[in-house]
Amino acid sequence: MIKITFLPDKKNIKVNKGTTILEALEKVGMNINTPCGGKGICGKCKVLVKEGIAAVAPTEEELLLEEEIKKGFRLACQTKLFKDTVIEIPSEIRLDFKRVFSSNLKGDIDRIKNNFSLGTNLKKVFLDLKKPSLDDQRSDWERIKDELSSKKIENISNLKTSLEILKKIPVLIREANFKITVILYNNEIINVEKGDTTKSSYGIAFDVGTTTVAGYLVDLNSGEELSAVAKANPQIIYGDDVISRIGFAQKQKENLEILQRKIVNILNEIIKENTQKAGVDTNNIHKISIAGNTCMHHLLLGLNPSNIAPSPYIPVIKESLSLKVKDIPGLSLSPTAHIYILPNISAFVGADIVAGILAICMWENEKISLFIDLGTNGEIVLGSKRKMWTCSTAAGPAFEGARISSGMRAAEGAIDKVKIDNESITYRVIKDSKVRGICGSGLIDLIAELIKLGLIDKSGKLIGREECDPKLNKEIRKRIINEQKGNKFLLVKGKETENGKSIYITQRDIREVQLAKAAIFAGIKILLKEVNILPKNIQKILLAGAFGNFIDKKSAIRIGLIPYLPLEKIESVGNAAGRGAEITLLSEKTREICKKISKDIKYIELSSRADFQEEFVEAMFFKS
Amino acid sequence: MIKITFLPDKKNIKVNKGTTILEALEKVGMNINTPCGGKGICGKCKVLVKEGIAAVAPTEEELLLEEEIKKGFRLACQTKLFKDTVIEIPSEIRLDFKRVFSSNLKGDIDRIKNNFSLGTNLKKVFLDLKKPSLDDQRSDWERIKDELSSKKIENISNLKTSLEILKKIPVLIREANFKITVILYNNEIINVEKGDTTKSSYGIAFDVGTTTVAGYLVDLNSGEELSAVAKANPQIIYGDDVISRIGFAQKQKENLEILQRKIVNILNEIIKENTQKAGVDTNNIHKISIAGNTCMHHLLLGLNPSNIAPSPYIPVIKESLSLKVKDIPGLSLSPTAHIYILPNISAFVGADIVAGILAICMWENEKISLFIDLGTNGEIVLGSKRKMWTCSTAAGPAFEGARISSGMRAAEGAIDKVKIDNESITYRVIKDSKVRGICGSGLIDLIAELIKLGLIDKSGKLIGREECDPKLNKEIRKRIINEQKGNKFLLVKGKETENGKSIYITQRDIREVQLAKAAIFAGIKILLKEVNILPKNIQKILLAGAFGNFIDKKSAIRIGLIPYLPLEKIESVGNAAGRGAEITLLSEKTREICKKISKDIKYIELSSRADFQEEFVEAMFFKS
Repeated sequence: MIKITFLPDKKNIKVNKGTTILEALEKVGMNINTPCGGKGICGKCKVLVKEGIAAVAPTEEELLLEEEIKKGFRLACQTKLFKDTVIEIPSEIRLDFKRVFSSNLKGDIDRIKNNFSLGTNLKKVFLDLKKPSLDDQRSDWERIKDELSSKKIENISNLKTSLEILKKIPVLIREANFKITVILYNNEIINVEKGDTTKSSYGIAFDVGTTTVAGYLVDLNSGEELSAVAKANPQIIYGDDVISRIGFAQKQKENLEILQRKIVNILNEIIKENTQKAGVDTNNIHKISIAGNTCMHHLLLGLNPSNIAPSPYIPVIKESLSLKVKDIPGLSLSPTAHIYILPNISAFVGADIVAGILAICMWENEKISLFIDLGTNGEIVLGSKRKMWTCSTAAGPAFEGARISSGMRAAEGAIDKVKIDNESITYRVIKDSKVRGICGSGLIDLIAELIKLGLIDKSGKLIGREECDPKLNKEIRKRIINEQKGNKFLLVKGKETENGKSIYITQRDIREVQLAKAAIFAGIKILLKEVNILPKNIQKILLAGAFGNFIDKKSAIRIGLIPYLPLEKIESVGNAAGRGAEITLLSEKTREICKKISKDIKYIELSSRADFQEEFVEAMFFKS
Repeated sequence: MIKITFLPDKKNIKVNKGTTILEALEKVGMNINTPCGGKGICGKCKVLVKEGIAAVAPTEEELLLEEEIKKGFRLACQTKLFKDTVIEIPSEIRLDFKRVFSSNLKGDIDRIKNNFSLGTNLKKVFLDLKKPSLDDQRSDWERIKDELSSKKIENISNLKTSLEILKKIPVLIREANFKITVILYNNEIINVEKGDTTKSSYGIAFDVGTTTVAGYLVDLNSGEELSAVAKANPQIIYGDDVISRIGFAQKQKENLEILQRKIVNILNEIIKENTQKAGVDTNNIHKISIAGNTCMHHLLLGLNPSNIAPSPYIPVIKESLSLKVKDIPGLSLSPTAHIYILPNISAFVGADIVAGILAICMWENEKISLFIDLGTNGEIVLGSKRKMWTCSTAAGPAFEGARISSGMRAAEGAIDKVKIDNESITYRVIKDSKVRGICGSGLIDLIAELIKLGLIDKSGKLIGREECDPKLNKEIRKRIINEQKGNKFLLVKGKETENGKSIYITQRDIREVQLAKAAIFAGIKILLKEVNILPKNIQKILLAGAFGNFIDKKSAIRIGLIPYLPLEKIESVGNAAGRGAEITLLSEKTREICKKISKDIKYIELSSRADFQEEFVEAMFFKS
């Protein structure tokens, strides 16, 4: 065994010789960005070996600069360790960000109360049971049942329970001196607690994304959200996107279990953090709602995702599921607590979209709106209460910083806003710290600004210094660096960045963004065609998702990511998926709406559309 | 294949031509006495061929009387069968060791078919699914559901399934090239199988007793019983009776699990033996019914039995339960197969009695009958379809050989029948082997004979040699041994026993039997009082249970175990509990009857009856 120390956290772990840095990181519970899934292709998992030498692998020679190798930089996925080593993990590749995407929707609880009535289908009833005697030999179960019946609680004809509860009852009721609280869900007793706990009734809603997992703790009595926690999906070490994770799951039988365990562990962490923050006893969480994309849904439930990835893209199940905690191994909640899994729409339009449609009320809106969830994939919904259409486009992880030379996630040190005019360049850095890179919203701002200045032409070409408008400020012009493989533009000088390296946008970065935005826009175009309307007929654009929430609307229009519409008609709606999941916890009637949404929506398979390629190519251009 | 029917059980089996009767008997699960091991030497395995002719083998000519051969008697080990044959198995050669308690009830399946219709609520449907394509992206689940729907299978609105099945589906349907059989139980898919397996649909019914566990494999399509296996309950090492097992369970936490594992293991062995005998694939067992006494019920389900033993005797639950195999850890059946647990009546009147009442049709009988299940405990039911009363008496394990000086279970070497007249003493030994002891039925015979001869007086005293009737044969008289602490009677001399020690019945043995029979009879008296009838108003006495089946009716009356009634009104009904469990498998409507029986029956708690002691003391006496 050798000892590996990670800086700056000073975390230690002992591993076998030959373990890769990535494996050691995983063992110690630190997550880093590995866009290619640890295959040695992307060169993003750069770490600095401070003490102890690590041999250089051929892939590293290829992907790292000679200078970097000399300094001690290595790729975490490629470097095997054979002696005690101290390694620094640069903050830009770390995945420990915590932006909590709390919802922007206002007055939701009131709306739920008004429209649906707060209906959790959960009742906690305090019972002061009569003690048994030779004249009253009723079983423990009968005693509880009769007492409930005497209290005229509805729905207890055919009262059910599970063996777990029956196993618990005899000792619990005697320890509680026959004073207990029963938790009724529909016609089932899902738990019993000592004494009177009727006031403590909680639920938790999850949005399980490819990149981020968020959990919301709610009070089932008041409908209030008590706490929200978001964490990086730790499956990320097996790949940035769903396709690489499915690939990993298929490699060997245990891998599906590994992925399931990863996601369950992060749910457990989120539960723990939420309950600690809110001062709630985990045992009092009686209901759970989970919305995720179809792949995350399968991985969480341990369902084989193999047929999702290849054409014709077949999930195991799309319909909602009613489960119990015990059905998901390792989940740290009361085993008989109830789980509602929201329904999916297709292999690439998941329950998160259904939850989103529920939350933004598209299903009851007379007017046509366009709902775009921009995450690792881009899911698009167009329509109104009469009918909705949806499709999914592989926006790719460009907007999340992957495959962008100085790209990073929207974490501390990321540039998330950029403004350039002839006078100056200004930008905003998340958490106001030293610059570490640029995230999706910053990138879109930057490209939009360069288009405005004429530095990027219609075709997406970053023009040479000599081709610039002569009126352009000299300082700006100087930032264009002509290179043979394509020009690049200097955004931040090395002296202002954390690691001393300058932040550029390269020609290749622009191409990545072009591909991503073209995919989204072509998807929108196909849906418009289906619905047979023009962009101007769209009454509202609603942007959701990790990235959709922080994007600058004007920039998004300028680069052609979304159709041109007056800015007041474009709205960021926060984490609509999480909020939708919450709503299904608080008002169970909305589950019927989810069912209807997922069943009635028309899914358009873009890969089978001859006109998609055409739209895609056309959408590659910028309108300058 | 030819069909062999055995009387009086009416058991059928199909065998290859040339099979011997003995082999056929073994296959059908009936055991007979074959002292020479089937070598054609002893001539003991005499059976009567009623229909179909069987050639006479040379050994048979030697060992059987000419007259016997003419009547149709043959030796089971020597006679090969070549056509459909009906054979009667005389009770005296039936093996009392592995006494398989097959029911004596006649025409059960026909009765079920007529009265209830064979209704298993199980459907196996073969589906030839359309393969997925870009034009047909339905999920695997939808594909199955739609196909079922197109076949107009009832009850599939709200079709449900479990995660286990969803986990199985994607690989299974592709390996089966989309040709599968789904197993529908009510509105749930409880399994899927490759190809067309509609013809293979089985269930298994269990009677879980304190001493013996029996399992019956049935064909759910035809309603036929395919095989029956009974085994000793291995929990026995933790005590003979339920009280000692509960004591063990309470000692430490793990003990309940140990007891559960023991019982699950024996169920697994019974399943294995049954399926091997019948040539059935265990995976095709889709339904299970279990009847047991209340304590065995709790131990099997892992429910805390602690409050059953002390007053006021409170079980956790009496009502029936619908479970899945996965709810009982370690049970070797398909995890999603359905288990029905029959309802109990009280802490000491269990589901086995409910099953018995169902099987013997007491619940639909206008006339008043008395049903006694004599096992380790004695449960008594008195009544008619209008109303039934029940109680439980601690008969104690005396009838099962415990606490009797030479007592033993009804196993090989046990004396199970005794006849004494002035001329001679005759007895029957199980498996005709060397005598090892005396079992319950032998003990009752012996006491009855001694009462008849005046050797036991009214008070139960075994009189001294000098007090005997002077006319008594000297040989018999010599067997009375006067001792200070009470006399004893020599039944078998040491030279005839396995261990060389003589078999006696002692004064103390007689007292044990007095206590046991008094408990039963006092229970009967209390019930008669409740119902307000005289013994002569009882239309029928039905004896069930391990011991009740083999008892000599005349002896039972003579010692005062049961009321005096003409012998034709007393019937042994075999393992009524097992048969009742079988019926609940084959006709689910009977589950409602079980519910009604368990709810409506009036349980009399003898320990709270002031008059019980009085009756008990009175019943201690013998009527000579």
